[in-house]
Amino acid sequence: MIRPIALTRGVVSIQQAHYNGLSRVYMSTRTETDAFGPIEVPADKYWGAQTQRSFTNFKIGEGAKERMPEPIIHAFGILKKACAEVNETYGLDSEIASAIKEAAQEVVDGKLNDNFPLVVFQTGSGTQSNMNANEVISNRAIELLGGVKGSKKPVHPNDHVNMSQSSNDTFPTVMHIAAVTEIHHRLIPALSKLAESLSAKSNEFSSIIKIGRTHLQDATPLTLGQEFSGYARQIEIGVERVKRVLPDLYKLAQGGTAVGTGLNTHKGFDTAIAAKVAEYTGLPFVTNDNKFEALAAHDAVVEASGALNTVAVSLFKIANDIRYLGSGPRCGYGELSLPENEPGSSIMPGKVNPTQNEAVTMVCAQVFGNHATITFAGASGQFELNVFKPVLAANLLRSIRLIADASDSFRVHCVDGIQANKDRINELLNKSLMLVTALNPHIGYDAASKVAKNAHKKGLTLKESALELKVLTSEQFDQWVRPEDMIHPK
Amino acid sequence: MIRPIALTRGVVSIQQAHYNGLSRVYMSTRTETDAFGPIEVPADKYWGAQTQRSFTNFKIGEGAKERMPEPIIHAFGILKKACAEVNETYGLDSEIASAIKEAAQEVVDGKLNDNFPLVVFQTGSGTQSNMNANEVISNRAIELLGGVKGSKKPVHPNDHVNMSQSSNDTFPTVMHIAAVTEIHHRLIPALSKLAESLSAKSNEFSSIIKIGRTHLQDATPLTLGQEFSGYARQIEIGVERVKRVLPDLYKLAQGGTAVGTGLNTHKGFDTAIAAKVAEYTGLPFVTNDNKFEALAAHDAVVEASGALNTVAVSLFKIANDIRYLGSGPRCGYGELSLPENEPGSSIMPGKVNPTQNEAVTMVCAQVFGNHATITFAGASGQFELNVFKPVLAANLLRSIRLIADASDSFRVHCVDGIQANKDRINELLNKSLMLVTALNPHIGYDAASKVAKNAHKKGLTLKESALELKVLTSEQFDQWVRPEDMIHPK
Amino acid sequence: MIRPIALTRGVVSIQQAHYNGLSRVYMSTRTETDAFGPIEVPADKYWGAQTQRSFTNFKIGEGAKERMPEPIIHAFGILKKACAEVNETYGLDSEIASAIKEAAQEVVDGKLNDNFPLVVFQTGSGTQSNMNANEVISNRAIELLGGVKGSKKPVHPNDHVNMSQSSNDTFPTVMHIAAVTEIHHRLIPALSKLAESLSAKSNEFSSIIKIGRTHLQDATPLTLGQEFSGYARQIEIGVERVKRVLPDLYKLAQGGTAVGTGLNTHKGFDTAIAAKVAEYTGLPFVTNDNKFEALAAHDAVVEASGALNTVAVSLFKIANDIRYLGSGPRCGYGELSLPENEPGSSIMPGKVNPTQNEAVTMVCAQVFGNHATITFAGASGQFELNVFKPVLAANLLRSIRLIADASDSFRVHCVDGIQANKDRINELLNKSLMLVTALNPHIGYDAASKVAKNAHKKGLTLKESALELKVLTSEQFDQWVRPEDMIHPK
Amino acid sequence: MIRPIALTRGVVSIQQAHYNGLSRVYMSTRTETDAFGPIEVPADKYWGAQTQRSFTNFKIGEGAKERMPEPIIHAFGILKKACAEVNETYGLDSEIASAIKEAAQEVVDGKLNDNFPLVVFQTGSGTQSNMNANEVISNRAIELLGGVKGSKKPVHPNDHVNMSQSSNDTFPTVMHIAAVTEIHHRLIPALSKLAESLSAKSNEFSSIIKIGRTHLQDATPLTLGQEFSGYARQIEIGVERVKRVLPDLYKLAQGGTAVGTGLNTHKGFDTAIAAKVAEYTGLPFVTNDNKFEALAAHDAVVEASGALNTVAVSLFKIANDIRYLGSGPRCGYGELSLPENEPGSSIMPGKVNPTQNEAVTMVCAQVFGNHATITFAGASGQFELNVFKPVLAANLLRSIRLIADASDSFRVHCVDGIQANKDRINELLNKSLMLVTALNPHIGYDAASKVAKNAHKKGLTLKESALELKVLTSEQFDQWVRPEDMIHPK
Repeated sequence: MIRPIALTRGVVSIQQAHYNGLSRVYMSTRTETDAFGPIEVPADKYWGAQTQRSFTNFKIGEGAKERMPEPIIHAFGILKKACAEVNETYGLDSEIASAIKEAAQEVVDGKLNDNFPLVVFQTGSGTQSNMNANEVISNRAIELLGGVKGSKKPVHPNDHVNMSQSSNDTFPTVMHIAAVTEIHHRLIPALSKLAESLSAKSNEFSSIIKIGRTHLQDATPLTLGQEFSGYARQIEIGVERVKRVLPDLYKLAQGGTAVGTGLNTHKGFDTAIAAKVAEYTGLPFVTNDNKFEALAAHDAVVEASGALNTVAVSLFKIANDIRYLGSGPRCGYGELSLPENEPGSSIMPGKVNPTQNEAVTMVCAQVFGNHATITFAGASGQFELNVFKPVLAANLLRSIRLIADASDSFRVHCVDGIQANKDRINELLNKSLMLVTALNPHIGYDAASKVAKNAHKKGLTLKESALELKVLTSEQFDQWVRPEDMIHPK
Repeated sequence: MIRPIALTRGVVSIQQAHYNGLSRVYMSTRTETDAFGPIEVPADKYWGAQTQRSFTNFKIGEGAKERMPEPIIHAFGILKKACAEVNETYGLDSEIASAIKEAAQEVVDGKLNDNFPLVVFQTGSGTQSNMNANEVISNRAIELLGGVKGSKKPVHPNDHVNMSQSSNDTFPTVMHIAAVTEIHHRLIPALSKLAESLSAKSNEFSSIIKIGRTHLQDATPLTLGQEFSGYARQIEIGVERVKRVLPDLYKLAQGGTAVGTGLNTHKGFDTAIAAKVAEYTGLPFVTNDNKFEALAAHDAVVEASGALNTVAVSLFKIANDIRYLGSGPRCGYGELSLPENEPGSSIMPGKVNPTQNEAVTMVCAQVFGNHATITFAGASGQFELNVFKPVLAANLLRSIRLIADASDSFRVHCVDGIQANKDRINELLNKSLMLVTALNPHIGYDAASKVAKNAHKKGLTLKESALELKVLTSEQFDQWVRPEDMIHPK
Repeated sequence: MIRPIALTRGVVSIQQAHYNGLSRVYMSTRTETDAFGPIEVPADKYWGAQTQRSFTNFKIGEGAKERMPEPIIHAFGILKKACAEVNETYGLDSEIASAIKEAAQEVVDGKLNDNFPLVVFQTGSGTQSNMNANEVISNRAIELLGGVKGSKKPVHPNDHVNMSQSSNDTFPTVMHIAAVTEIHHRLIPALSKLAESLSAKSNEFSSIIKIGRTHLQDATPLTLGQEFSGYARQIEIGVERVKRVLPDLYKLAQGGTAVGTGLNTHKGFDTAIAAKVAEYTGLPFVTNDNKFEALAAHDAVVEASGALNTVAVSLFKIANDIRYLGSGPRCGYGELSLPENEPGSSIMPGKVNPTQNEAVTMVCAQVFGNHATITFAGASGQFELNVFKPVLAANLLRSIRLIADASDSFRVHCVDGIQANKDRINELLNKSLMLVTALNPHIGYDAASKVAKNAHKKGLTLKESALELKVLTSEQFDQWVRPEDMIHPK
Repeated sequence: MIRPIALTRGVVSIQQAHYNGLSRVYMSTRTETDAFGPIEVPADKYWGAQTQRSFTNFKIGEGAKERMPEPIIHAFGILKKACAEVNETYGLDSEIASAIKEAAQEVVDGKLNDNFPLVVFQTGSGTQSNMNANEVISNRAIELLGGVKGSKKPVHPNDHVNMSQSSNDTFPTVMHIAAVTEIHHRLIPALSKLAESLSAKSNEFSSIIKIGRTHLQDATPLTLGQEFSGYARQIEIGVERVKRVLPDLYKLAQGGTAVGTGLNTHKGFDTAIAAKVAEYTGLPFVTNDNKFEALAAHDAVVEASGALNTVAVSLFKIANDIRYLGSGPRCGYGELSLPENEPGSSIMPGKVNPTQNEAVTMVCAQVFGNHATITFAGASGQFELNVFKPVLAANLLRSIRLIADASDSFRVHCVDGIQANKDRINELLNKSLMLVTALNPHIGYDAASKVAKNAHKKGLTLKESALELKVLTSEQFDQWVRPEDMIHPK
């Protein structure tokens, strides 16, 4: 049968030509059924009736942009595989279990990504994405066993793939699997490398003494290395902060089923699943010993987002400082040279826009907003279920991904290539009037003050002013005014 | 030449197989050049060297999800066409101008969407997306004129397509064109239809008297129509709120060029462009008469987002109320029946999950977060330029789109199908003790109070209690206790 | 009777010695009663039993800091006076009405401020503050009529002062009266004056040409006056933005009583009250023609907060720019001198900390947070009532007050005293390499580019470089490189 | 000399009669001096010239509401005492040291609270509050030593009280001391007690089986104790979350002085101060080993606020659930009875407004906003100093205080008194159709489904329906449909 996937939106525009990224073309379909009756689905897809209904009922967002994050899809693969394996020990037919595991592994491997067309803005329990996983895995397993897609035989999406599960416990479980996996494999490595790069720069710049700035005003000196050590430390602690929130993310809801009581599971199912997920991922997942909290609240997600929010605060400060320190080339602070990655102006040599810093700070602004969304959604659970699960998951995973990617990009394309403009740094240091502090013990506060005021008034350097006022010799100035003695306690 | 588009990210996973949605496959390339020298780009794409560099330098986000919103791309088509037309009046070769206009129209029509691969998290001025537009339009125009892509002849991306423009004025201009267009063609229609549907329900329910609830506690009665009239009014005013913020969005930055002075444009260029954009779109765009404000601040975007935030607040309240009023079927408020769009439970008749309400409230949570991002980004401009433009545009357009789509979805799949459960509404109304208020003038406050307390204590209806206490007759009760007299002032 | 006002909090510390600002001292009391029975209240206060219960049951916050904002108290004075006057036309005894009006006027005049001890974090309808107003006014009216405080004779707090009213309509009414009054008498004047000061500076600086900065990098020139014109414009539009949100704030809920139906009021009561409030305040208040929306939603407050949020975004940008432009004195941008209001360092002449800018930007950060609170609270209404009224009112009024006061402070102590450092501005302008653009038409792009690159490499000025390369004469340079021709369109 | 403390604000209103809580009355003054010269201060106050200038220059906010939080003042007492003690070991005259310590202890004890009139919106380093502490302590010490206030002899505010310190390290130090102290002595006890109360209720309700609700729809049963166990667990984890963020708050900035280098301190000064503060407070404070991070960033505050934000999310969910479960008395869920703390309606028995829940949820909304402020302020540090310190401290401390006080209030006035309405709970449980699930093994899915559908259609109970359809006997129903078997895994 050839028929169109109809699009019936009122506002017709080119953007809608690819709804949810699916081409609006005539395509071959097959019939799938659910409790509502038959419905046509694209013949080349594994999804079934419930996925198709969600696809039709929730046309929200531009193209494929609002689709469920891929880490959620892959986590469903991990979970469904674990469930098949554990269910086998509780009596699930082993041929069916094997087929489910094979199909689930293909989901893990991303081979079936195109079969997950649903958007975040669907039912708040994520039921439709859970059914999407069940349908795709059952149809693929049916295919592996030589059956007919859509027949639900010999592998049924509910009875077999979703056995002993409810969307209400699977979705929070995949939220945690996805978040932990992304944090471990993407975020922590990216932040750690950035911290190392900043630390390396701190070492590289350890002997460059520069003017400090407080309230944006000239202050006492420090080394450029000391300044960068603060940045490195912020990110190092950031890694610790992210790790601090992992304990509650390791706790899995699986086994709570519909309302947290574990109805329709066996005793021990929950711990067996957590153990299996831990085995597959190599990460210390455990079962959450209060499933009521696990389904009705997502405080662990809110807490984790709080850590990401803090990391974004750190990144913002660092990226912002570095772009100001690199401002110029002639009319700014000009203490740093940032790598030139793209053409600046063809006419103005030295013009480098701090584009990586701009991307990083935009990412931070996005993370702040994602955190606001997560806070609101996290607070809005009701009774036995929080029905903001997809938007919670999507924002958490987006923040993780954006921070990780931006950290990598910033490190590779900016931090590693930063160079100190020693001449400029030295010029500013020597120009500064605050080094006069060092003269107090030698010529007295009053004379020192006169030197500074005279310099300020006439636009002289401190040394010029001191010599003009004849309060010391050139040699004495060089001996007494030593910034290198001002960068640590006595 | 056949060569891979290399992907060198450290964290290798399946998600990266399609970076920014571009397949990681060996593909044919051609050489493009910019001030940094030659670089290979995919042979079948129109973009040039600067787009390719941005694509390489900003690998941020999952797949294609973080790409620049399509309305921005289409607005670039509108703007570049307008510029070509106006530039022709200032001496641009008319053959070149015609080719640019034809290519730009293809951008407007969405035919070249696949040629805009850049993500939001790039340079904060949007320069790279402006160059993306210049490169695609010039190469397509070259092709239309029979030239060789990448030759920059006879149509140069900078000299011709970007003539008299700077990214610093084009990007804020397309931000406004995109936002206004989306608001007019997508948001206002969607909200207006939703308001109409709510208003229709208000009329339909105008004679159904129900118990009111304040502090969630039983209160004096009102009609279900009155309750829905509040919802309808919220959305009606929401449309007005959105319209209130349009005046500043109509103001275009074009003509400010690099810092707002209009260097390298001619007097009158700015107003001519605004007039041309107004002509193309049929919307009252004008030139912003302070280009310094137009480039350095995006307060108009922040203000507009504030209106969207308010609309989301309204939608949240409405969707939340309706799902509570529909809660049940047996153990909730149960006053409304919501349309059943997907299978509920196969075993529990009447179980309908308020999935549309859940999608709407998740959208609202997202809009609140987007607004926080916009607030932060809007406050962070520096000197002559705000360099958070792409993240501002992306969040504003996403909020517009999400609210519009969710409003449509909610209206079609929920509001229009809401039915009042009259029996349940009546049962609760009669059960309520607060109708006793109506007896005060007839039997006195003290006796009325006894009736209520007796009813509360023994679990009786008011009527049963009154009859038991023999303070009135059955006929008197029916005559005196008339909820229909309690729903308006005396 | 002498007895202590007991404080029974677990955590004993000095902060609690003055709970809610009330001394923990033995004091004389009198007995007041309500439906819960008798309760002791301080003898020298006018409040009654319900106020005292709230005072006891809601010990939340440090000292008096969380008390209901004073503009709410004063608005209660206005409203209760209006009600007495209108109720007199519906039959309220004229002697009682007169006494209520006199007492209410004392509330308006702030004479009874100390009688409003309740905090924001009480019942979400503001009922307790409404009763506080009823109790204080009735007791004061009783006193004026020679009666005994606490006797409720001849003026009853509910029957007379609260006649035809419910907390559910009075509190939203005073929210609007307070917000509109504060906006009119405090915010708009403060912003207008700030805009005028910025505009005056723009005029004063109209002939000072300076280097522009985009991406923080040196760019083409503009005048300092042009730069300040952008600031002035931001605030001018800010005033318009605030005015745009007034229409919905002018709408009063009074007359809706408990659930919006107007039960227990007379037809026309609502419009009569609005007219009376308009008369007293000289501001165009009207009755809200949908009382259901007026009680259940506070979208008008959310919208207004969105405007304040936008104004704060503007202020942040301006205050931030100005402190960077004033950074130095030797090692920053140094283009502006800000007024010195407090001692900087005793040793470093010229050290001025931009403290006003710091206060302003902190205020902005606070307003952003207040807006987040308002958004959350505004979305959380339920059925016929939003029970986040006090926190909505407190945050809105705080934002209004903070922006107004900070604008005044910033204007008087900073903006009006800003001076341009013309020498520094000129030095940077001449140092900049981007003026080379002006040579293109005379010596060609290639030669101009060589001049710039040579200057950058050797640290020369453009003129020095050009002369060294012998591409023009000193006279030609001065004739051709004229920043004053680069600050407007051709 | 008698003179007025002039108030020169433009907008004259009654609110300003008490500026910053200081009466606008003629009062006796004395002359204090600083680098700006002489200035009059109130004769009865200990503060000096710099405090007075800040008081005059930052008239921001309503009355005393915006004053620096008291825990900051008290922490200054602790810190200044510690500094005097350590400085004595580095040579500070012991008589002076003793007097400083005595005066500082009075600050700790709250005896000098009235001498700290400054508001949060001052200089962003908190310098003025640091000087306020220095001035008050020096004048009080002078007084103790028999000297003349304002003479700066024998105790100088800078040379002695502020010895080896800078505002840049003292203010972040007191921020941490205040936050940690408040968390330990106020927040953790309050949350712990609330968790205990919820846990006690969970135990009390452990045998009450009730209907579960997901998506607000009737679902499978659980016990009321299980439901409350989720609440208890949320708060228990909340305590852990707060503890998780303490490590970085224990780190003190003291010893970094102006820019983090420790200029003008001795080696070991930093660790000695931290040890002394730890000794005084009994809390494990340590020195921050990267003072650059400690002054320029306040990520520890942002992280801590993230934990508070998460706790507020938990509280919101709990308080919201409980008020819905208590909704009624006749027309809501009605499963819980909440304590009646204030008069509900005089006419409607049983009407109890969930006012404590309303206060708690308003507090949560405030905390969410405070967190947004902190996020913004935390991200906005510049170079060697974050100049949003006072607004960071004020919002963090306010969130701590509000959550602690609201938790106490909610526990005492609500949670501890919650009673289960067993009849109502049982009625709903038996009414529910979802218990039909239990019949599947006995009469088959199809027959069970018919029972449910028949019950739904005709408004019968399941039992009535089953008997009507004659699929089982009354005894069989009672034996097979046992909710107590549905609340745990098999």
